[in-house]
Amino acid sequence: MRVVIADLLAYSDAFVAAFRARMPDVDFAVWPELRRGSDYELLVAWLLPADFQSAPPSLRAIFCFGSGTDGLLGDPRIPGHIPVVRLRDEGQADQLLDYALYAAFARLNDDFAARRDQAAAHWRCAARPNLSRASLSIAVLGLGPLGAHVAQGLAAAGFPVRAWSRSPRDLPGVRCLHGPAGLGDCVDGADLLINLLPSRPETRDILTTSLFYRLAPGACLVNLGRGDHLDEDALREALRSGRLGGAFLDVFRSEPLPATHWFWRHERVRLTPHRAGLPTPRGAAASVAAVVDALKAGQALPGLVRGGSAEKYA
Amino acid sequence: MRVVIADLLAYSDAFVAAFRARMPDVDFAVWPELRRGSDYELLVAWLLPADFQSAPPSLRAIFCFGSGTDGLLGDPRIPGHIPVVRLRDEGQADQLLDYALYAAFARLNDDFAARRDQAAAHWRCAARPNLSRASLSIAVLGLGPLGAHVAQGLAAAGFPVRAWSRSPRDLPGVRCLHGPAGLGDCVDGADLLINLLPSRPETRDILTTSLFYRLAPGACLVNLGRGDHLDEDALREALRSGRLGGAFLDVFRSEPLPATHWFWRHERVRLTPHRAGLPTPRGAAASVAAVVDALKAGQALPGLVRGGSAEKYA
Repeated sequence: MRVVIADLLAYSDAFVAAFRARMPDVDFAVWPELRRGSDYELLVAWLLPADFQSAPPSLRAIFCFGSGTDGLLGDPRIPGHIPVVRLRDEGQADQLLDYALYAAFARLNDDFAARRDQAAAHWRCAARPNLSRASLSIAVLGLGPLGAHVAQGLAAAGFPVRAWSRSPRDLPGVRCLHGPAGLGDCVDGADLLINLLPSRPETRDILTTSLFYRLAPGACLVNLGRGDHLDEDALREALRSGRLGGAFLDVFRSEPLPATHWFWRHERVRLTPHRAGLPTPRGAAASVAAVVDALKAGQALPGLVRGGSAEKYA
Repeated sequence: MRVVIADLLAYSDAFVAAFRARMPDVDFAVWPELRRGSDYELLVAWLLPADFQSAPPSLRAIFCFGSGTDGLLGDPRIPGHIPVVRLRDEGQADQLLDYALYAAFARLNDDFAARRDQAAAHWRCAARPNLSRASLSIAVLGLGPLGAHVAQGLAAAGFPVRAWSRSPRDLPGVRCLHGPAGLGDCVDGADLLINLLPSRPETRDILTTSLFYRLAPGACLVNLGRGDHLDEDALREALRSGRLGGAFLDVFRSEPLPATHWFWRHERVRLTPHRAGLPTPRGAAASVAAVVDALKAGQALPGLVRGGSAEKYA
């Protein structure tokens, strides 16, 4: 079987090595070196390469090398009958959880206020006892595999967690809400709002003023979903008014984020360049191997998002 | 029994209320309102008030309202036969653990580098996969009640933890080292160094160049002990050379930290005004109540640091 890796991230070498070591009988090729139109059965990519023209007849599936399949599903160069499967990488899910925990402990530690005091050389004695984890309420939007991992990990760390999804879910230790009516209850009074929704037309601009006003005053926003979830003007106004205490942003409408964007310079925006949850060589190799094995055996593809018979991702 | 609360922190009111609610039969007085020389049996203070002259003959014990009894033990106004007991407050210990976890997740998230990139509006794609908790090695100095709580909490969160103390200790999940020979082994290659030692002549300036050079390059320092543990010139040079990636400082040689000190303005120093672990009303009230009960019953005092027969603090 021939698999083509078409991902331009700088760390590709580590991944190609891991794939080859995990699947010695598979013929791995890297996109730029591949003769166009060559036969291959599996394409590994987060987005299609710019010079991708059409899928060869041999193509049996596309493996989404990252989180969020919106970039692939919206690409007209992929015929609708080609199954798209998603990465299942515990290492990646753990990174997103660790990022969420970083934001949660930063909020607990009143980090944005402390940094403002530091910038002003202002020694401000504590006016109130510090918060405890049990008193810091967290709302998680999105209960796909990654959102569920983050919500459960935060709950296991001792934070009270509510989570929201389109359809009903049940997660131990997490208060699950769903549907349009559940959104407000999920975020009401939360000190931290973590977005892990997929990008869909109905979730566009979901992070906006009406939601921010349901949060506790001074709450922090953590956007780990997509840039188009966030109404940027609403964020700016909520930071200005103090309604939001700060924002941790990893995803943006335009990536790389233009150097002139106000996010870069706002003292209560902390941003990272879309790297809160990266695939790991070990996790990605295991996930690709599971798909390769299923293709070989003619079985249902694990992590199927579109095409063929869907297997629910647990 | 009369107890005098002599602590000038701004939040005293919440504590006095908690003490009175927890011990309705105790006569609590607040230092500034007390007629000098009045009879009282227990004094609650972190440091003696400036206008404290001498202990009344009725004084039976001093309760250290904070962490570290160095300020009280070194005060010549306290007769050597007066027992000094320390606060045992789970809420305070949890705050120190949460601060340590904040620093650990910030280090895992490469926070100082991300902030430097943000200040430069530099979108830097990840050159390497993110770290995992299991790969972030933490060294904890000091295994008193607070250090032990922090070390065990970090280990429970999934970080590999080594810890160092003067005398041998045994803590589940933590690799314990002790004595002068154990210090280097404790810190060797650590990515995060957390100081929770008590202030003693032999620990002064223990955080210095020779120790920093045993750490992993780019490691972060977290000082939750005392300001005099840290060789400030050594820290500045280690930050300059990149040997240390950053420092989280909560304690200082002079407090409040003078506004002209370089710590305030260094981009890789993150400072808080000695508030990483504050007593909590509930925890402090329970701890004072245990001492009051022991005094009434003529039993050994819990948390004894000096004087009388020492009860080992578990």
